[in-house]
Amino acid sequence: MSAFSQAELEFLSTQVLGRLATVQPGGTLQVSPVGFHYNPDLGTIDVRGHNMAASRKFRNVADNARVAFVVDDVPSVQPWQVRCLEIRGRGEAIDPKVEDASGSPSHLDGAIIRIHPERIISFGIDQTAPEPHLLKPNNRDVATA
Amino acid sequence: MSAFSQAELEFLSTQVLGRLATVQPGGTLQVSPVGFHYNPDLGTIDVRGHNMAASRKFRNVADNARVAFVVDDVPSVQPWQVRCLEIRGRGEAIDPKVEDASGSPSHLDGAIIRIHPERIISFGIDQTAPEPHLLKPNNRDVATA
Repeated sequence: MSAFSQAELEFLSTQVLGRLATVQPGGTLQVSPVGFHYNPDLGTIDVRGHNMAASRKFRNVADNARVAFVVDDVPSVQPWQVRCLEIRGRGEAIDPKVEDASGSPSHLDGAIIRIHPERIISFGIDQTAPEPHLLKPNNRDVATA
Repeated sequence: MSAFSQAELEFLSTQVLGRLATVQPGGTLQVSPVGFHYNPDLGTIDVRGHNMAASRKFRNVADNARVAFVVDDVPSVQPWQVRCLEIRGRGEAIDPKVEDASGSPSHLDGAIIRIHPERIISFGIDQTAPEPHLLKPNNRDVATA
């Protein structure tokens, strides 16, 4: 049972980039474009990237699990329309090279940041409206995986 | 004298959305797509939006000035190419309705979040390369406005 609606899962599958916010040592913030996919087995968002294990964002998550992730697009400029799916939750920095045999699934060939959703902010995906300001956000807390 | 290169300013001017990361009360993170423009008079990024003054992100910034902001795009999928300009710094929550006469410029008709850059992470904008992994990030601290 996914925390996401079918429309949200379809939206996620059409997008090539999301943006991942993490906390750096000292409390400053970082936000980076990342490739991602929804992991249907775990209900998580798995984030990959070139040299992921060596990246600042990966070390940020290893140090502080608080993350926020957003996927959005602008299907129409006239009238202005934004679709937005934000996921707040706990990030897990997984490097298969340092996992034991019971660790990450074998299809992982590189390090990932795995996002366990705790709160979802969804806007413009499950519904349409003649005016953007008439859209109601679909915000909800979700069970942590 | 802008903290941004000419190529970076041109890149910013072509993009309709950036993503703004803020810290919520309690330390959880938020990341939101936002409209923005570069303010050449102040060297800041000014973020606007519908009902900005009432938004959670506006109140986050009023409470905790730490922000990160990223503008990116994918000019080519084959080969994979991402351009990315990340700006870390101090956010200022400005509501003209509560400013005194010496406050915000008169062209502001609504609340904004003003980002004062402190560190810039730039990738794929000032240079091109045959392979993305050959690109060198242009990361630098910048004077605060």
